[in-house]
Amino acid sequence: MHSTPVPISTDLKVFSKMPLFTGVVPPVVTPLHSDFSVDLPSFTRTIENLLDGGVHGLFVLGSTSEVVFHDEAGRRAIIEHAVKVNNGRVPIFAGVIDPTTDRVINHARTARSAGADAVVVTAPFYTRTSQPEIGDHFRYIKDAVDIPIIAYDIPVCVHVKLERRTTVGLASEGVIAGIKDSSGDDGNLRYVLKDMANDPSFFGMTGSEILVDSVLAMGAHGVVPGLANVDPHGYVRLWNLMQAGQHAEARLEQERLLKLFEIVWISLGRTSAGSAGVGAFKSAMKSLGIIASNTMARPQRSLNDEETAKVEIILRDVGLLR
Amino acid sequence: MHSTPVPISTDLKVFSKMPLFTGVVPPVVTPLHSDFSVDLPSFTRTIENLLDGGVHGLFVLGSTSEVVFHDEAGRRAIIEHAVKVNNGRVPIFAGVIDPTTDRVINHARTARSAGADAVVVTAPFYTRTSQPEIGDHFRYIKDAVDIPIIAYDIPVCVHVKLERRTTVGLASEGVIAGIKDSSGDDGNLRYVLKDMANDPSFFGMTGSEILVDSVLAMGAHGVVPGLANVDPHGYVRLWNLMQAGQHAEARLEQERLLKLFEIVWISLGRTSAGSAGVGAFKSAMKSLGIIASNTMARPQRSLNDEETAKVEIILRDVGLLR
Amino acid sequence: MHSTPVPISTDLKVFSKMPLFTGVVPPVVTPLHSDFSVDLPSFTRTIENLLDGGVHGLFVLGSTSEVVFHDEAGRRAIIEHAVKVNNGRVPIFAGVIDPTTDRVINHARTARSAGADAVVVTAPFYTRTSQPEIGDHFRYIKDAVDIPIIAYDIPVCVHVKLERRTTVGLASEGVIAGIKDSSGDDGNLRYVLKDMANDPSFFGMTGSEILVDSVLAMGAHGVVPGLANVDPHGYVRLWNLMQAGQHAEARLEQERLLKLFEIVWISLGRTSAGSAGVGAFKSAMKSLGIIASNTMARPQRSLNDEETAKVEIILRDVGLLR
Amino acid sequence: MHSTPVPISTDLKVFSKMPLFTGVVPPVVTPLHSDFSVDLPSFTRTIENLLDGGVHGLFVLGSTSEVVFHDEAGRRAIIEHAVKVNNGRVPIFAGVIDPTTDRVINHARTARSAGADAVVVTAPFYTRTSQPEIGDHFRYIKDAVDIPIIAYDIPVCVHVKLERRTTVGLASEGVIAGIKDSSGDDGNLRYVLKDMANDPSFFGMTGSEILVDSVLAMGAHGVVPGLANVDPHGYVRLWNLMQAGQHAEARLEQERLLKLFEIVWISLGRTSAGSAGVGAFKSAMKSLGIIASNTMARPQRSLNDEETAKVEIILRDVGLLR
Repeated sequence: MHSTPVPISTDLKVFSKMPLFTGVVPPVVTPLHSDFSVDLPSFTRTIENLLDGGVHGLFVLGSTSEVVFHDEAGRRAIIEHAVKVNNGRVPIFAGVIDPTTDRVINHARTARSAGADAVVVTAPFYTRTSQPEIGDHFRYIKDAVDIPIIAYDIPVCVHVKLERRTTVGLASEGVIAGIKDSSGDDGNLRYVLKDMANDPSFFGMTGSEILVDSVLAMGAHGVVPGLANVDPHGYVRLWNLMQAGQHAEARLEQERLLKLFEIVWISLGRTSAGSAGVGAFKSAMKSLGIIASNTMARPQRSLNDEETAKVEIILRDVGLLR
Repeated sequence: MHSTPVPISTDLKVFSKMPLFTGVVPPVVTPLHSDFSVDLPSFTRTIENLLDGGVHGLFVLGSTSEVVFHDEAGRRAIIEHAVKVNNGRVPIFAGVIDPTTDRVINHARTARSAGADAVVVTAPFYTRTSQPEIGDHFRYIKDAVDIPIIAYDIPVCVHVKLERRTTVGLASEGVIAGIKDSSGDDGNLRYVLKDMANDPSFFGMTGSEILVDSVLAMGAHGVVPGLANVDPHGYVRLWNLMQAGQHAEARLEQERLLKLFEIVWISLGRTSAGSAGVGAFKSAMKSLGIIASNTMARPQRSLNDEETAKVEIILRDVGLLR
Repeated sequence: MHSTPVPISTDLKVFSKMPLFTGVVPPVVTPLHSDFSVDLPSFTRTIENLLDGGVHGLFVLGSTSEVVFHDEAGRRAIIEHAVKVNNGRVPIFAGVIDPTTDRVINHARTARSAGADAVVVTAPFYTRTSQPEIGDHFRYIKDAVDIPIIAYDIPVCVHVKLERRTTVGLASEGVIAGIKDSSGDDGNLRYVLKDMANDPSFFGMTGSEILVDSVLAMGAHGVVPGLANVDPHGYVRLWNLMQAGQHAEARLEQERLLKLFEIVWISLGRTSAGSAGVGAFKSAMKSLGIIASNTMARPQRSLNDEETAKVEIILRDVGLLR
Repeated sequence: MHSTPVPISTDLKVFSKMPLFTGVVPPVVTPLHSDFSVDLPSFTRTIENLLDGGVHGLFVLGSTSEVVFHDEAGRRAIIEHAVKVNNGRVPIFAGVIDPTTDRVINHARTARSAGADAVVVTAPFYTRTSQPEIGDHFRYIKDAVDIPIIAYDIPVCVHVKLERRTTVGLASEGVIAGIKDSSGDDGNLRYVLKDMANDPSFFGMTGSEILVDSVLAMGAHGVVPGLANVDPHGYVRLWNLMQAGQHAEARLEQERLLKLFEIVWISLGRTSAGSAGVGAFKSAMKSLGIIASNTMARPQRSLNDEETAKVEIILRDVGLLR
């Protein structure tokens, strides 16, 4: 049912009854030079590597993209570069992640004018808001900018959960087109999918790297795995196997990716969890020749040589590096 | 010892041995029109009300000022207006609060050029950083901008504690001039003050409204109470009583202010904790004729008429309204 | 591989290479009279209802059994009654849940002498222990009592996670025979199963009611659903479908059980989450004629008539009540 | 007003208008032999050391006493021994700490018959209860056992806060005689004291070791410092100075005790926070000749020789060891 990731139809009634996006839509790593500026040639290779792997969409300026380290001008440049490199091959989501409503509206306008197909919005952060206030946050953005909104449930960053009633309420009102769930609460996602089952245009995606087969099996429409920056073919294989109903084979592929995912804990302790995860992706991408430097945005720490050597052992173990 | 809130000296050696700031330094509420734009005439009255009350400094763009709701241009306008109204009467701190290092550096440059005397910096947020990375965050800012830095410990917003070793390390290196503690962990603040006791230039301030006498009694150098926007005279009286060693009288004044602080829970449940607190300050300020509207920045909810009526009962009870 | 839930073999070498327990092993509700004493006739019917439903084991004195509300004598009586009613039909786990090591050892001795086949042990609680101390907790119990130990990962109750390295370490040493995971962290469980894949005797079970198909699909050996007290046939059907590789049909059954699980939120707000969940199970069981009273142990609140009426609507909706 | 710690009066009307307990009431460490059995001779010396230091009451079976490591028989023996050694010199509180209502009632009956003057009760734990259910927990105990109840607010162990409305409600109904606050939320304690100011029989005590002067200054009636097991004279001096209104001298004594309190972090990392704190008290008490062994109850780890050497450096630094 979801084998066509980007449904194209001249029949608007049919179109409106399908999810806007499905498939593997990785959050795209933002490579940096050692002076912390964006390394555009590496960024081009990152995107080409994902498209070569067969991904169905690109999510620029997600958490994995270190979005909150970039200001408005930097974000515009990142979206524009991605749009240019992609050149219409797949749809592009843009994260418009900042603490409060009016600032998010500005980012959403920028994203729209820079060519993004949808924007990804979290609950407000730093400030503490209630579920009704969070609902209004999405409504204000919807009213202000004419672009599809994907809700981003990421309590580990914003420290509040998008509760089922909030998500389902916004989806039923047509404020949000779908949800990207990085909460780890797959039970809640399952209830959201159930509640919205009568609306074939609503979609749910998981941010998990390690439970993709499970979440697809329960009816999710896509997956947004940061680890796909390292192994896009793996996640596309996993997606295709699940689309074909080959659960046992999908499980084996997922288990191979579990091994690869172990890179995210290598520098833990010396660095924060945030630096350890994206830092490991960057180190692996450098070892694979995709990007030039594993530099993390300030004040995060990058993986050192010893840690990178451990990353490479795992890359060899899963067959990505010889 | 700290009876002179703003030490002025031509002898630099003496100057360097005293805290840069002491006394009552309220975070200044940012009044809004009902269309969410800043209400400058109300902002002027807010500042004049504080200065009339005898406060020793102004902290613009703090959490109580709804700082994260304002973008770079808006923040510059707020600082410039405050600097103009203040006209050198007291020193001005400016919050430079945003998720990551380079964005904070930009805000700090703006604050410096707009005339702020010091900047107030939190740990990074949204992203998860370790204590060493948080230390580097402050060091990068210190290296980039020539202005005193005050560390702002506010785990309820950034979801990480500035640990004693981090704060004391940064203070000992001369990276931070002082700390504003809104963590509620007065024991930790006490240890920081003890560790830095040999450095007479280091200062610690509490963000508490309700334990001011206690925290001053243990050696803190100042207080940053949001509630002072409603009753600056009360907090200045409290400060003066503690400076004079009149603990029993100070306790009575603090207990009067405890009654007033009850306004922050009136709308809780209907609104978030964030909206309830600053929203109550704004409602009280409107009832007292200081500001024109109690509008909260989007998506927060403002207090309604019924809740404002309850605020006014308390204002009468503590003698602020007849 | 796991189609025989309770492997029976005279060949000890083969036996030792299979999981001790697999299948549906519900935590058995402990029915109470309105004076809070255990209602043994209702308890008998609860057990018979489960066995009629085809469950593969019984877990008495779990969280759903309100274990921590019962003292040592009460616990012995509960295990003995269950052992008598069961009469060897399926294996029985007994929860031996109390804050600290020596008290757990006493409970484990009681459970063993009362006829339990294995004991279920959490991390210490009330006291705060480190992962190495938690490991020692299990080792001390293993040394003291000759009975298989199942680790119970339930952070929502004990406020500490059994980390992967702790679980895998204890499993590798032979201290624990398996794990019951009620942490909601299925990714961690998946890694534990992967780490222990070479030990065919180790087993992992999920405490989830709503992700059973998912967790079985990733290789778990069983499920411990409180909701099976209300609908044992549903969970046994779900288990059998997954054993047969009928994922789509399993998903439909799981989705029916999701509807049923909605009963656990009916009294939320008026009661705590704890009372709401087990309280709803008891109310449903009363409505289905299995138990005589929905009384919850003190100080928990039972569902009232209005809430019970809502439970019955759902029971009808899923076909359990006419 | 609170200078007489244990009010004695034949005029019952006057008596009933004063707090039942005031002053320094340390939680008494429970010394163990290396085989984990209670070391009664060391326990006797622990109590005599406290009484020699001038404390105004004893709190046996608190968290610092490792209460949850002891079963019902062990607890009875501990209370009876303390009652015998104390021989009426000061009042004795007994902690009756276990997860649920009926078990606490049993402990309270034991405590009463063993000679305790009051019992100390926490919110239920392991199970999750709401504030109204927590209120009922205290009411059931009050109805069942004729002994004064002190509420024990210790979220770090039971993972729920006794909210102001709960505490004040129970106090107003006469269910609880006072509160021991180990929540670290001194602002909340201050509001509870304010709300109960018209009831001179209600008392509030802090469990803090490091903010004693502050909390007494705001009107608290006593202090329950675990560290008094190491230095009872220090806390009694601090109490007396505060009673005499000598705030500056009290602050100096408190700052000396802050130095001593640093022992609680020495083994942190190698042991849990729980083991590190009480373990340091035990190590210090052994070094001071009060107890024979620093053994912690299983599965906690005791301080090792290297850590004990660091404890002794601090003991020398604050003048307790030569």
